[in-house]
Order: sequence, then structure tokens, then C-alpha cells
Amino acid sequence: MASEPPRFRVIGRSTPKVDAVAKVTGRAQFGADVRLPRMLTAKVLHSPHAHALIRSIDTGKARALHGVAAVITGRDLANITPGVEGPRGTVSPEHYYMSKEVMARDKVLFQGHPVAAVAAVSADVAEEALELVQVEYDVLDHVLDPVEAMKPGAPLLHDDLDTQGPDGGPPLSRNVAEHLVFGRGDVERGFAEADVVVERSFTTQVVHQGYIEPDAEAAQVDTDGSVEVWANTQAPYAVRDALSVLLDTPSSKIKVTPTEVGGAFGGKETVRVSALCAALSREAGLPVRMALTREEVLRATGPGTATASRVKVGVRRDGIITAIEANIVYDAGAFPGAPLRSALRRVFSHYHTPNLKIDAYDVVTNKPHVAAYRAPGATPTAFALESVVDEAGERLGLEPLEFRLQNVSRAGDPMPDGVLLPSVNLADMLEQVKRHPCWTTPLSGPNQGRGIALGMWTMPGGTTSCHVTVSGDGSVTLVLGTVDLSATRTSLAMVAAEALNIDYDDIRVVIADTDTGSYCDGSSGDRVTYLTSKAVHEATRDLLDKLKGLVAKELGVPQQEIVFDGKGFRVEAAPEKQITLAEAARRSLRSGGALVGYGSVSESPDRVAIAPNAAAHVADVEVDPETGKVDVIGYTTFQDVGRSINPPQVEGQMQGGATQGIGWALSEEYDFDEAGGLRNASLLDYRIPTMLDVPRIGANVVEIPSDDHPYGIRAVGQVPIVPPAGAIANAIYSAVGVRMRELPMKPESVFWALKAARDR
Amino acid sequence: MASEPPRFRVIGRSTPKVDAVAKVTGRAQFGADVRLPRMLTAKVLHSPHAHALIRSIDTGKARALHGVAAVITGRDLANITPGVEGPRGTVSPEHYYMSKEVMARDKVLFQGHPVAAVAAVSADVAEEALELVQVEYDVLDHVLDPVEAMKPGAPLLHDDLDTQGPDGGPPLSRNVAEHLVFGRGDVERGFAEADVVVERSFTTQVVHQGYIEPDAEAAQVDTDGSVEVWANTQAPYAVRDALSVLLDTPSSKIKVTPTEVGGAFGGKETVRVSALCAALSREAGLPVRMALTREEVLRATGPGTATASRVKVGVRRDGIITAIEANIVYDAGAFPGAPLRSALRRVFSHYHTPNLKIDAYDVVTNKPHVAAYRAPGATPTAFALESVVDEAGERLGLEPLEFRLQNVSRAGDPMPDGVLLPSVNLADMLEQVKRHPCWTTPLSGPNQGRGIALGMWTMPGGTTSCHVTVSGDGSVTLVLGTVDLSATRTSLAMVAAEALNIDYDDIRVVIADTDTGSYCDGSSGDRVTYLTSKAVHEATRDLLDKLKGLVAKELGVPQQEIVFDGKGFRVEAAPEKQITLAEAARRSLRSGGALVGYGSVSESPDRVAIAPNAAAHVADVEVDPETGKVDVIGYTTFQDVGRSINPPQVEGQMQGGATQGIGWALSEEYDFDEAGGLRNASLLDYRIPTMLDVPRIGANVVEIPSDDHPYGIRAVGQVPIVPPAGAIANAIYSAVGVRMRELPMKPESVFWALKAARDR
Repeated sequence: MASEPPRFRVIGRSTPKVDAVAKVTGRAQFGADVRLPRMLTAKVLHSPHAHALIRSIDTGKARALHGVAAVITGRDLANITPGVEGPRGTVSPEHYYMSKEVMARDKVLFQGHPVAAVAAVSADVAEEALELVQVEYDVLDHVLDPVEAMKPGAPLLHDDLDTQGPDGGPPLSRNVAEHLVFGRGDVERGFAEADVVVERSFTTQVVHQGYIEPDAEAAQVDTDGSVEVWANTQAPYAVRDALSVLLDTPSSKIKVTPTEVGGAFGGKETVRVSALCAALSREAGLPVRMALTREEVLRATGPGTATASRVKVGVRRDGIITAIEANIVYDAGAFPGAPLRSALRRVFSHYHTPNLKIDAYDVVTNKPHVAAYRAPGATPTAFALESVVDEAGERLGLEPLEFRLQNVSRAGDPMPDGVLLPSVNLADMLEQVKRHPCWTTPLSGPNQGRGIALGMWTMPGGTTSCHVTVSGDGSVTLVLGTVDLSATRTSLAMVAAEALNIDYDDIRVVIADTDTGSYCDGSSGDRVTYLTSKAVHEATRDLLDKLKGLVAKELGVPQQEIVFDGKGFRVEAAPEKQITLAEAARRSLRSGGALVGYGSVSESPDRVAIAPNAAAHVADVEVDPETGKVDVIGYTTFQDVGRSINPPQVEGQMQGGATQGIGWALSEEYDFDEAGGLRNASLLDYRIPTMLDVPRIGANVVEIPSDDHPYGIRAVGQVPIVPPAGAIANAIYSAVGVRMRELPMKPESVFWALKAARDR
Repeated sequence: MASEPPRFRVIGRSTPKVDAVAKVTGRAQFGADVRLPRMLTAKVLHSPHAHALIRSIDTGKARALHGVAAVITGRDLANITPGVEGPRGTVSPEHYYMSKEVMARDKVLFQGHPVAAVAAVSADVAEEALELVQVEYDVLDHVLDPVEAMKPGAPLLHDDLDTQGPDGGPPLSRNVAEHLVFGRGDVERGFAEADVVVERSFTTQVVHQGYIEPDAEAAQVDTDGSVEVWANTQAPYAVRDALSVLLDTPSSKIKVTPTEVGGAFGGKETVRVSALCAALSREAGLPVRMALTREEVLRATGPGTATASRVKVGVRRDGIITAIEANIVYDAGAFPGAPLRSALRRVFSHYHTPNLKIDAYDVVTNKPHVAAYRAPGATPTAFALESVVDEAGERLGLEPLEFRLQNVSRAGDPMPDGVLLPSVNLADMLEQVKRHPCWTTPLSGPNQGRGIALGMWTMPGGTTSCHVTVSGDGSVTLVLGTVDLSATRTSLAMVAAEALNIDYDDIRVVIADTDTGSYCDGSSGDRVTYLTSKAVHEATRDLLDKLKGLVAKELGVPQQEIVFDGKGFRVEAAPEKQITLAEAARRSLRSGGALVGYGSVSESPDRVAIAPNAAAHVADVEVDPETGKVDVIGYTTFQDVGRSINPPQVEGQMQGGATQGIGWALSEEYDFDEAGGLRNASLLDYRIPTMLDVPRIGANVVEIPSDDHPYGIRAVGQVPIVPPAGAIANAIYSAVGVRMRELPMKPESVFWALKAARDR
């Protein structure tokens, strides 16, 4: 894999997005653009209670309303039981909880939980019908705080959660879905060796991915039960397989056509709208489309997790970190599944320490069920870790960057779960930061400060496949099963052009539906460019090999004597015998059968991590001591991307992730009232950063090729959201001397923290 | 290939069409059902002259009409020259003439030739705009009769036709596009050995395939020039490649989605409507749909060829045919390409004779350009041959069936072009006819008669491919590139179920677009079931092999020890180790990458014919001597289908082909006026048979497995249209003693023939 071509013709050149015009002119088809003859509009009835038993649902009046074609409740989805062998195989806990989340059956678990849905000839009629659905609830006590939810006597959400304590100890609260323990060495001995030990508690709130396109999907169920779905999803095959369980229909009878996706960031991996559309269409016998309102997106989709954590770091006077201990509660919302495992193995992997102990809990509360959000679960914990590390270094008078440089992981170090890190380039990257003006230029004003924080992510692995064909005129079609969230059509076309040694313009990229495409795990966790480019590389090799075999047969020479130089195939020793790519494709149709190059890659990070990509962010802030408002006046990112396929897109990933991290750090949070209702369910009140809130973000691409990829690339999309909260917290301390330990670090919080510091 | 499974579980069982409900409920999407946002409607301006130069076209007023979005003329399609190397490779004569047929550039060649097209917000506006297009013509002399067209001094249609005479003799008329000579032995000697020589002349008229769904297609051209087409075509890949040339766009930038096809029979293989929609959409920047009227279908699509022929047969007193000579003029209409080659090699192959000479001509006339029509070109010539053979046998007092039985071809006999016939079962089949009540039951009334005729067809070869995948729940998706014209979705699903040893219901068949499907030559010439079932067989083998490899690796045994029994994979020696198909598919996603079974078949009949399928038809008629009207009172078909996959569909093919043959024999013809205008351009005046015109047609399936197919099947769709005209002509002779030598044998013709016979 490490044998890298001496130079690239296409890779690394700034290339406009292939779909830029379609997007700008409105031609690109999003979920809300799907138009089908006689299509109905669907609306959902949401629970007004955070926790209640459903005593009865009467849909009779709604059904009787003129223009209503179907009304469904939870009983119209398959009643599935986890672990039980059914016609679709054994039901996974994930699908079991998904079926309850999509629509409540006996119990509502959060305000906004879907209770019924209506399909009608118009949105107005559907909304009128919702008002006619009569639901009787028995309201139950609810719990919003995950730490409270763990305590004895807290309201219990589920009957079937029963987590053992560590080391087979007494069972934990039945609101704890998982207790995870990672560790190595002996933290007690480590802390004993330390000259300074800092231990702090942190809390962070639920935040939303802030994707701009609300969930909008459509479905059509045919009389034979086969299902067609247009889904604005990151994961068409996962949607297909989940719908198979939820609708009790064979996977092969479900066709998922992915639409364009207007932002997702982890929030569009699960089944939600499409399952309701399909169940409604099955009843109505007509196609059904549903588009959520912004309010519904915020109230009733899957936001990012909240946390409560305690992190303890011990450091020797010479700057060596001797131990790290963490206790972290992840708030899963109404159903199990906070991303603790994926987060913690990475967040605690970028510092080398012999002694590490992490306890983490996946706790259910009466809030919307969390979903993935860019580097899922990492930002809140990295905020805690980078704050404590910063404070410990400061207590010993160590320069923040040098102190980190001393402790960063190197190749061969273990991650918290024992998986080994291959090439890691944190140290090299920090050397670059050290010399960069963002670090060397002094700040000029009062109440200004500079902070640094690090982050690391690794590729989660998975399966991806694709196929590639050549037409009789030599133009090439690349068929993918991975949805394009971040210009991956463009970068993968570049990879195919590179691998086939042809012009970029001769490649057409097609993202297929699940019937005709090649299986891929979702477009998430940095999978697409890293894994799919490997599959593309493999598919082009497969195609060229097959064409070489054909040409060799036609020319009567052994296949190994055939070379391909982009223009055509020829015999190495006799360059006058040349057959163009187009001609070879035409001949293949006549003699060898239609040739398809197929590539499939399946990778697992079970023993060695894949393509670690490290980031360092430097934030400059200015704090208004009167109001507590924090302005980010400078922000610079550094990231080892291995190799940049399409530089502007890579830089865009770094800037976009940092922007989302800044929002999480300073302004974004779900604000729940006492009853569990979301107070700020609009983009006026839920504050994502605007262009006025962020400075121009410097994107410094570091290219240290990974040795597990044919082009040396590393993933780039997740890690940029990891460091911002820590970097900004450290900058605020540097500016005004207070350490913020709650996200968001909104003006009110900073104001009170400043006041408390002054009062001390 | 000959190793045939001992019994079939699925193949051979009567199975309902998978898409029956979709078709019956109107869910199936035909070309006219395509709905796209802001879609325009297109209409075509047709030439009122059969032959004229276009002096000028003024589209200004039409363009200025409110609601008109685009107006095109021939100059808006690529100006291509055959044989010249362009960006799309060397232009074939076929594409060159197609570009002129789709829309005239400088010259119109038939009444109905498209001259301009308009896309507007409604059909009304488009039609109003057509009236505003001003075309100035210089009218030229025209020629409708192909025999006249061959004479010196006939009006010439094309400047660039220049056919050499036989043996390098003097050039033929420049209206002759091709002169074909087939033969063997010495016909003069053969006729000298004969005791009876019969030589007769025949004429047949242009007929239409009579497909029920008028051509209706849509196109959308994006701002980047990429083209999406919804085509009611038999040949999506051929459409893609033709559009690539006509629109000067790379093939990979053209996506053709095949819609359902409501009948085609050879008439929907070429590009016609879709090219105009695409050119209009390119100009308008919006999607464009065009649906032809029935009148346009009859006037301006591609009907079946007319012929003028002379056939001479010599027979010895002992019943042996000593020589056959034929001279046949095929009327190509306005552009070269009558199907003489494909027809004549087959029509003259079912009789064994040592001496054979065929001269045939492809002649252009000022009529619509012919297209294929079921067993293209065979029906008119088989009518002539079977009439002359019948007459010669009768002259010698030979029993018609016994006489034919003496002369039919056997395995190893050559076809007219020298290609050898493998297994042929005409003799076995005729033995069955001889014992069948349709032949043994005497006729009961006056003016009744019985006739027999034979036919043979062979598979044309070509390339077809497909792929097959298994989902994690064990359900299977079969992706085809071949359009379903005759329930081939169902039969190919049956083949996949048989090959995978799973339930038929677990298979889903998908007909993909050209971006994502696998390359296939068109659904024509009996290709689909024969070739694609081979590809399906190959793909399932490929998939099972790959899954066996995976299972073997997991179980730690050599792959050859793994057997698959439908339920799952197991080690032959240790049946307790079993992994289900679904489980193997799930594991493949985790460890081996997504598995796709791929099958591609490319066959050429260059040396040995493929799967000869023979037919014998027995017709009983009653002739009304007062009016000349012929009633078909009994009709029985026999056909060697090798093996019937889905019996009702096979019988339907036999009955449908016979019905079309009866229409061709008795009532269908294009009736041109002096100016070259079609008089009967409606289904009231162009008379295809109704249910009242045909009796219940007996379908006797003969199953003598072919040895070139894994399931022994032969093609079934073409040959049933070949014998009817001959069988009915012979039955008419048997009823009333006149030999009809012109098609259709309409009442008027039979009346005059009877009168002439009485007057003699």
C-alpha cells in the first residue's frame, strides 16, 4: 500500500465540485423536491409530555375527515422484540429502540415523541386531522439530568435495562444502559508520582447538528408490499435494513433512493421520517411525503449528547503526565446509545500516559434520543481533558504547547481500548504550530487571550464497494453507494481519473439506489473518502486487469506484457500495437462480455487504528468583562490529512468543523423547561454561529501520508470539531483568568464566573 | 452446458407475473407517466411531402409565441458524417442515417419526416407554435414502389449510396443500399434434376408492429450538458450510445432509464422521440416530454418492411426438393436497413436442399424507414416460400405434411450463409403434428380448407450481463439491464431462484438504468430469456462461489468441501456446521467486503447457429365466396421451445405471434396515396386483428432441450409470426382453389382472385 506514485496528475489539484451548478441552480433533488403522482402530505402528532403512559389513542375522527387518506399509530409498525429470532433474523437492540423511537407504542419518553401520523391531500388537512386525534395519557414523573437519572428512586424509562456494576458488582440504576471501563496501568500509583494533580468537574448540554435541510423524505408502498423510499439519509443501506425490520418486509423488497443531503453531520443516519411515510403509504395506497418543520427538527430528531464529567490529571514537575482518570456520564436521551465508546477511545488517545482509567456511563433521560454528531461524543470530553491538562501545566509553569509536545502519543502507543496507533504525527504538527504566526504573534489588546487544544480521530472501519464501467466512447461511469455529504463525488472522481490515468472530465460519478448500487456502510465517521477511494482504486485496477486480459488475448501476447498509459493499451515491447480504452471497451462487448471493475473494501480497526488524523487548534479571544461576551478574534487549525485530494474541500472541512465547535463552545444548547419541553426550538433562539460570530479560520493542511492507504490519505471530517471548546476555554482563561467548566460558555456564564472570581 | 439438473423446482411451473398487479393497477410507469417539475410538452412538425428539398425554415414566429420554450430543427442535432473519426469514435452508417431520420436537415424523404419540433408549456401551445413554423420546400419526384425505385431514372433519395452489382458488375441503382447473395450448389443443375419446377412472384405491403403504447419519452439536459432520458425503448444502452453521437455528448454523461414498454416487437429499438426531447431540453433548460399520437405512430415511426419476391422451387417425383432460387426486394423506406440478412439466413434454412441461390436487395423508397418487426423480414418471404413449396408438392400429388417432413433440415445442415445448424427438431415436431387432432380431424363445411407452414428462427447472439446480491436477511436482488417486454422479469427471477435453490418470492428483479445496470444488448431477437438466463446462471454461480470461499475461510476448511443446499452452506463431511445464506451475507459485509455475483455472456452465431427453434402452424379457414372474406376457424401452433420456463408466458408468445401473423396475412397494410401520404393512419382504418378475428389458438409446446444452454431453453418470441401467412394462404387454396400471392389476403383481393379463377 505504501508504494506511492511519484507524482499525481489529478489528486491534490483544486477542482470545482461536479455538482456545484446543480446545487446552485436548484436542480439537485433533495427530499422535499420529490414529486410523485397523487402524493400525499404527512404530519406527525408529538407527545406533549416528557414521560407518560398512553392509555388510548382514538383516530376515528381524524380518519373521518375529508381528505385524510391514512392515520397510523405505533401499532402500525412491526411489534418487535430484541434478541428474538424473527423472519428478518435476530432483532438488534438498535432496531428495537429505533422502532420505539420512530413512534411510541405504549409510552412516550420525551416531549416531541411521535404518537400518531396522518397522510392527507394537503398539509392543512393533515394538521387539522392531527387535532382530531384523541390521546389519553397517564403522566409519569420524568428526569432530564443524567446524573439524577442514575440515582436510586429516579423515574425509570425502560423496563428492560438492567446493567451490571463494574466487576460484577451490584446492578446500577436501570436508567444506565451501559457502563464502560477503559484503562491501563495503575492510576493511584500514577497520581502518587505526580507533583501536581488537578481534578475538575464539567457539564455540557444537548446540542443539535444544525443541518440546514430539515428531514424530508417520501415513500411509496406497492400493492405487493414492496417499498420505495426517497431518503435524505447518510446511510441508505442502513435505512433499508432498518425499514426491513420496522415494516417486516424483506430487504430486497425495499429500494432506498438517496436524495441530496443538505447537511447531516451524523444526524441523518437513522430511520425516522421514512418509516412513517412508508407505514402511511402502505395504508393509503398512495405515495406519501413528509418534511419536518425546523421546530420539529429541533424537538424530535437526534441531537448530540450532553455530558457530566470529572477528569483528573497528574503531572510530574518535569512535565510528564503520570496518570489520567475520568468519570463521564453521557446523556443518551430517551433510548440507549450515547457514543461513549467511539469517543473515549479517541479523546484519551492523543496523550501518552502509562496510567489511565476511564469510567463512562450511557444514561437514558426524558429528552430526545441522541444521534451522532461529528466526532460523536468527543467534543465535550476533549473540552474537559484539554482544560484540566492546561490547568495542570499552568500550575507547574509549563509553556502550554511545549508541555503538550512532551506528552503526545507516538506510533505504537495504545489507545484506551488497547488498539495500537500506527503513524501519528502530533509532534511534527506541534512543531509547525510553534513556528506559525498564530502562535508567535503577540496579542495586542486587553482581555485578550490565546488557547491551544489538541484532538485526534481514527477511521471507524466498515465496508464500502463500488463499480466502474467504460462506455464504447471511452467515457467512464463510477457507481457508488455512498451518499455525497461533502463533495465526495468530486474527490472520488478525481481518484478514479488518477487511477485510470484519464481526464477528470471523462468520469461520471453516480450515487445509486440500494437496488442497483454497491453495498456501503453509511457516509459517516470519515468513511467515505478514505474507504471509498480504496474501493475505487481497487475497482479501477480490476477493470484495467480485465481489459488487459482482453487486449492480450486479441494481440496474442501474455497479459503481463500489456501496459496501459491512459491513451490506450499496448504491448510494452511493441508500442505500435495500441488499442484505445474506448476500443477495448467496444471489443469487450463483442468478445469477452461486458466488463465491470468491482472494488470492495472491508476494514476493521480491531488491532491497529486506521489513519489517525490529529488536529491542533489555536484560538484567540477577547472577553468583554462587562457582559461576559466572548469574541473569537483569531482561529487557526492544523490537521494532518495525510494527503489532500481536493484542497479547498479539505480546508472547508477543517473550517466547518471548527465553526461548529465554536458554536458548541459559546452559544449552542438545548434549553429545557421544568416539564421537559424545549424552550428554544427555532434558529432564532437556538444560536448556531453566523458569519459574524467567527473570524476567518486558518486551515493549515499538514500532509504526512498514512501508510495504510494507496494515496496516503487520512480522514478529515471528524476531528476539526474536537478541539475548539478546549482551545476557547483555555483562551478565555488566558484572557481573563477564569476557567469555564460548563458549555456553552455563554455571556451569562462568563459574566457570573468573572464576578465569582472578583468576589473571591 | 448439457449437464442438466435432474429436476427443476421452479423452472417449468406456471408462475404469475411479478409485475401483474403494478400493470393492472396503473402503478407501472410508462413513458407517458413520467412527471418532472416544470416539464414541458413537445410536438413535432412533419413533412407534408414525400420527397423535397428544404429551402428554408423560419422558426422566429414560433419562438416568439408566449409559452414556447424551445424550437429546434435538424441543425440542432450534431452534423455527423459516416466513417469519419470524431470525438465519439467513428460514426457508423446506422447512426448517420438515424440522425437524418430523427429530423430532416436539408431534405425530407417521406411524408411525416420530422422537420422541426417545439417544446411549450402545453400541448395546445406547442401545436399552435407548429403552425407558425414556416418551411419552404422544393418538391421532388418521389418513388414508393421498391421495384420501381431500382429502375434507371427513378428519383434518387440519397447521394451517397453506390452499390456494386454482383461479381463486381455494373453499379446498381443508387436506391439500392445492399445487394445480398447467399447460395450453395448449382441451382441450374438442381432444377434440371427436378420433375416439377414452380416459380411464382409475390408482393407484401408495409405493416406496423401495432404496439398499443404510442412512443412516449422524456429528457432532461442539465447545465453541465449531462442528459437524462426516460425511454420506452427495447434497448437502453443502444439509445444511450446513439444519443451520444446525435447530441455529441459522452456516453457516460447520458443516463437512460427504461420505462415500462407497452409493446414493441422490434419497433422501439432506435432513437426517435428521446433525441428530440433531449435537444429541446438542452435549449429550454427544462425537462421535456413528448408522446406521439396514434396517427404519428403510424405515419412516422418504423414499420415492418414490404417485399416483392420471386421464388422458384424444383422437386423430384419422389418428393425431394432439388433446388430453391429466390430473388427478393426488401423495401427499406427512406433509409437503408431492411432486415434481409437476418431474415433470409433463417427463412431458407428449414428445408434441406443441395442447391440454393438467393439474391436480395435493400432498396430505399419515399416511405417511413422500416424497423424490425418480430422475426424481422421473415414473414413475407416465408409466405412466398411456403406457398411455392405447397404448390410444388400439390402438383406432384404429395401429402403436404409428409412432403415437408421429407425435406426438413437436420442437425449439421447449413443455413444459407453457411452457418451450421446444431440440434434441429423439425422432423420430431412434424411427427407430433401428424398425430394431432388439428391435423387428423376432418373439416366439416363447404369452402373450408386447411393449410400448414413451417418456420425457423435462431438466436442472434449478443452480450448481456447482470449482477446479483444477497441482503443480510437472505433476500436476493437481481439487477438486469434488459427491458421486460414479455414477463422476462418473472422468468429470470425463476431462473435465479432455481440456480440459488431458494424460494421464488425471495428474489427481487430490478431493471436498472444505464448508469447503474449491467450492459446488455437490446431486448430483441429472442435475446432476453435465452442469453440473460445464462448470465443469471453465471452470476448466481459467481455469488455462491464467493460466499463458499468466505464460509470456507470462516470454518477453516477447503472451499471445495463447502456445499450449498438452499437453506445454507455446510461442510459436506460435517453437516452440523451450517451457515445460512443470510448469515453468510452478513458476514461478508464484515469480513470479505460486499459480495456481488456478476454474470456476463457474449455469444456469436458465426459458425454454429444458437438454439434453433422451429415452428409448425396449422390453419383452418372458411372463405366466403361472395365477399372474399377469410375467417380463421381453427389455428394450432407447435413449437420447439427447448424448455419452457414459465409455461403460460411461452404459450402467450406463441399465440401472440400467431395473432400478429394472422393480421399480416389477412388485413394489415399501409395504404399510400399517389403523393406518398398514408391513407389509413388510425387503428380504425389500419386493421389489426381483434379478439373476434382470431379463434382460440392452440399452443403445443414441444420441449427438446437445446444443448447450448444450462437449462436447455430455446428462444420463443420470434418464430410464431413466421408461418401464419403461408399456412393461411395454403388453407385458402385448400378451401377454394386459389393461390393468393399478395399480402394482405383481404376480402377484395380474394374476391377478385376467385372471380379470375372462375373466369379462366
